[in-house]
Order: sequence, then structure tokens, then C-alpha cells
Amino acid sequence: MLPPTIAWVDGAVALVDQTALPDLRVVTVTTVDELVDAIRRLVVRGAPALGVAGALGVALATRTAAGPELEAAAAQLAAARPTAVNLAVGVRRALAAAAEGPDAVLAVALAVLDEDVAGCRAIGARGAALLTELCGPGPLRLHTHCNAGALACVEWGTALGVVRSLHEAGRVSCVVAGETRPLLQGSRITAVELAEMGVAHRVVVDGAGPSIIARGLVDAVVVGADRVAANGDVANKIGTYPLALAAARAGIPFVVAAPESTLDPDTADGADIEIEERATEEVLVVGGARTAPAESSAWNPAFDVTPADLVTAVVTERRIWRPPT
Amino acid sequence: MLPPTIAWVDGAVALVDQTALPDLRVVTVTTVDELVDAIRRLVVRGAPALGVAGALGVALATRTAAGPELEAAAAQLAAARPTAVNLAVGVRRALAAAAEGPDAVLAVALAVLDEDVAGCRAIGARGAALLTELCGPGPLRLHTHCNAGALACVEWGTALGVVRSLHEAGRVSCVVAGETRPLLQGSRITAVELAEMGVAHRVVVDGAGPSIIARGLVDAVVVGADRVAANGDVANKIGTYPLALAAARAGIPFVVAAPESTLDPDTADGADIEIEERATEEVLVVGGARTAPAESSAWNPAFDVTPADLVTAVVTERRIWRPPT
Repeated sequence: MLPPTIAWVDGAVALVDQTALPDLRVVTVTTVDELVDAIRRLVVRGAPALGVAGALGVALATRTAAGPELEAAAAQLAAARPTAVNLAVGVRRALAAAAEGPDAVLAVALAVLDEDVAGCRAIGARGAALLTELCGPGPLRLHTHCNAGALACVEWGTALGVVRSLHEAGRVSCVVAGETRPLLQGSRITAVELAEMGVAHRVVVDGAGPSIIARGLVDAVVVGADRVAANGDVANKIGTYPLALAAARAGIPFVVAAPESTLDPDTADGADIEIEERATEEVLVVGGARTAPAESSAWNPAFDVTPADLVTAVVTERRIWRPPT
Repeated sequence: MLPPTIAWVDGAVALVDQTALPDLRVVTVTTVDELVDAIRRLVVRGAPALGVAGALGVALATRTAAGPELEAAAAQLAAARPTAVNLAVGVRRALAAAAEGPDAVLAVALAVLDEDVAGCRAIGARGAALLTELCGPGPLRLHTHCNAGALACVEWGTALGVVRSLHEAGRVSCVVAGETRPLLQGSRITAVELAEMGVAHRVVVDGAGPSIIARGLVDAVVVGADRVAANGDVANKIGTYPLALAAARAGIPFVVAAPESTLDPDTADGADIEIEERATEEVLVVGGARTAPAESSAWNPAFDVTPADLVTAVVTERRIWRPPT
């Protein structure tokens, strides 16, 4: 059994180091600077887990800072990564309690954490019911991308939470997991979770997902999200959009599973979502060796945007939302 | 300047080892068994180069075999990889001269090689003219996938031959090259060719191509092919189909550049094309280290099929073919 992805332990933030997976290593963070570094390096990642990290980070900050200094620490946390809205939401919620003192901030942060646990279970159950409605009783062949599992949340997961709920009901035949270059969250993290659940699964290169869908080998695509714009456009890990294109052409459901905190009413549509551009080395250095010549550069957008018309439904802990088309 | 990808040197077949790139290493093959092994391991790869390899392989075989034994060697060569039709076409052409003796077989094989050189130049010129017609005088931003360059042919290339011809006319702004997991032909091979040409380029993970197209950062997609069915469906390296889906949605041209020998009138449509399934280790082992748990399996289809309705045109050494839609 995996430990919680993120937890508050003896006044510090304990994180399952996502860069070390499939090796299991828990790191303990005691300052905001350390946490910002951990967020940037993806030691902690996944939109829901980032929301919890943001809130717990503000709790850490209240130990040594107050007033403008606390606000600066909160701003630093919120800006550590730009695309997942949950991070800023978690920071903002915890900071709102600052006037009531450190204990109140910690209580809010722990509430954010607890809500994630309960929310993911609700998303899982609702998503499982939706997929059963859309695809029949199964057992289903599902495609997912990156990691929207327990290791992207506190436990249970969002997209993989749906898989987990379906699997508990004996309704999963197999899961196809995109490896998710450049950082391989699909093979390093999602495959670990699926193996632990005992779900039959196959890892595929990201270029293979769309044609596997076209060949009729998948019943539905289920992914997480980093931000859902007001019009229903969905930012998620790079490589999600091609799966949505393929699902639409194949006529199978493309379902997004995410907490309400991922829905951002302040972002009108996908064009307004800032797409994080990460270091070119993540693309050009594979297994420690550079692949392309020294003259070669790279583009490394970490996310893409799937237009709302390709999204069958967004499943949250509260509702099933079908973006208007 | 790179040496020819494949050449007949002192009675042997000299190959630029494509598994060693970006390091340049030339290997010499003197028997059919060695050549079959080189084809399977992708020491030589690329549909046009495989056609030449098949023909030269029959020339090698005539040294020690005739009659049924020669036919068995030819069959072994033709079956070394299933998807690229050019391999079987090259073998068949050389074998047809067997009755006239080894010298005649070698003459045919060298003709196949010479035709590739001339054919690629014609494809390049015709493809450059087509893209200028479709996209304007440029300079153009082009997206390619895998390697359909000089290193997939004898020299010049097909899709990259089009880029080369446009570049000679000063009409290439930049090329986006999909890295092409699992074997990274995009970063290891295409980037080497683009660097040598002096063309500005960026390598991207395969999941990024479609959204880069959606963001309006590419004017056209140009790729090679391993087999084009009679109805215009195109088998090419895994990861091609998502680019075609994205190009269609973005309203930009998706152009296939390939010799006539890639067009297979005996294959009715994409469903009839055998898709080579390669070893799971190519996916699961990255840089020498296994990424997913021991319980995890993989799917590793080496090619996908792009339906004809997503193909703007197929450019060959003889014509521009727009599959009927």
C-alpha cells in the first residue's frame, strides 16, 4: 500500500517523491522555499495534490511570517507553476484564514486535504456510474494519460479514481496508459498504481494512443485536468488533446475527472490558459544521454488544451458537467 | 556530409547504422542472414532504403544460392519486416532477373538504388512546389515525424527531401520534428539531418505535435509513408495519425511524400495493412532502465494508419495524387 501522496506530519509536509518513482521515497519539507523547489521540480505534482501543497505551504509559512511577508510567501507558492489552477486556489483558501492565526490556517489546509480525499471518492463513484451509462456494464477497456491517480492527489485519484471505483465493481477489462513523455508519469507512476490495484494494463508510447483508439481497442478515454475554463476547454498534460481528437472521431466518450477546484470561472476559454513551458533538456536528454545534435533545440509545453466540443463530460465531486457545444 | 545510407561497396552492402545515430558508424554486411538481422534491428530502416536493401540482399544471395534456395533467401528478406511494402517490391524486382544470372540481379539492384536517388529529388521538387501552392511562398513552418530523410533513403530523402528542396530556395522558416518514441528517430536522425542542412528546428515530444498545430504554429505537416493502400490510406510511423487529425482540424495541409513503390495497389485499404508489433522493451526500457513495474506490459505497434480523407495529397516522383474523398 502506498503512503499518502502528501501529508502533514509533525509540523512538516511529507511528500512521496514523484521524481523517484517507481522507487518509493518520502521527503519531508519544512520551509516554503523547499516546497516551492519541490513543486517546480515535480517532487509533488498533479493538480489536486498541488492544491493541498499550496494550502499546507501557507501553513508552513505562518510559522515564521505574517502580514506582507506571509502574503509574499503565498504569492511565491501560487506562482511556482502556472497552469494548474488548484495550486493558487489552495493557497488563497489557506491565506484567507491568516487573520485568525496559524492554527486557523493549518485547520483550513487540513480541510483542503480532507476534502480531496472525500472528493476523489465521490468523483470515482460518479465517473464509474457515468461510464457505465455511456459504455454499458463492461468490463471496459479504458485509456488514460499521465497520472491522475492517488499519486496526483492525497489518495484514490481522479481519473484513476474512476478506474479504481470501476475496478472494485469488477468492471475494468484493461487500462491503456500513455507513457507521457517527457517525464514518463504514465509508465513510472500510473503503471505503479495500476499494478498495485491489480488492474491489467499496457503502457504505450504517446504517439500510439490515437491509433489504438481508431482500431476499436478502447471503450472510453478518462483523464484528469489542470484547469477547466469557463467554456469547458480543458488544460491537461501534453498529449491529452490527440486522444480527444481520436475519441471524437471514433465516437467513444472522452471524460475528464477533476475536483471542482479545477474549474476556473475566471478563465474564459483555453486561449486564456497559460501553458507552462519547461526546460528543453527534459526532451533532449533521455536516460542521461543527449539524443539530438548540439545545434538542435526543443519545445517543451507541459500541457495542451482540449476544446470543449471534444469533451463528453467533466465529472467533479458535485456533478456531471457537459460543456455546451 | 553524411555518407550514403546504403551502398554497394566491393561486393558487400555498406549501411549507416541507424541504431548508433547521432554517432556515425558504417557497418558492412556480406550475407543475407546478416542483412535480415540488420533490417530487423533497424540498422537499416526507412521504406525507400528498405526497398534498396531488399534488392541488394538478393544480389548478395546470388553469390551462394540459386533456384529454390535463392527464392527462400528472397522470401526471408521480404518477410524481415511486414509493413513497408517497398522491401518486398525491391526483393521481387531483383529476383525477377535471377534467370539471367548474378550480374543481371546486381544491375537491377543498383538500378533500384539509382532510381531512389533520382526519385527523391523529383519528390522533393514536386512537394516543394505543392507546398508553395498550398501555403504561399513562405518561409514555411513545417512539422515532420520520424525520419523520412536522406537516412531513410539512399540520399536526399522523401518528406525531408521536400524540406531540403524548399530550404535550397530559402523557403523554410523552421521545422518541428516529433521525437518519435520509442526509438527516437526524430531526435536521433531527423535532427541530425536538419542540423547538417542548417535548417532551424525544434524537437518535440510526440504528444505535443497536435496542440502545436492547434496553436497555429505550423503551416503544413509533411511525412513519409511505409505503405499507401489503393484507397489512399497511409501507413506510417506510429504517431503520424494524431498529426493528421490535428492538421485536418486546424485546416492545414497534411502531405505524404513517398516513392511510387510505396503505393500498393494490392492492399485495398488501411485495414488490410499488417501493423508490425515490436518488442515491449522498446517502450518499457528507457536509457537502459526499466520505467514501469515488473507486472506492467506494453503495446508497441510500430506504425499507424491515417485514413485517406485526412490526407491532402501523396507526392511521388511521378505525380501528385489526391485520394478521392
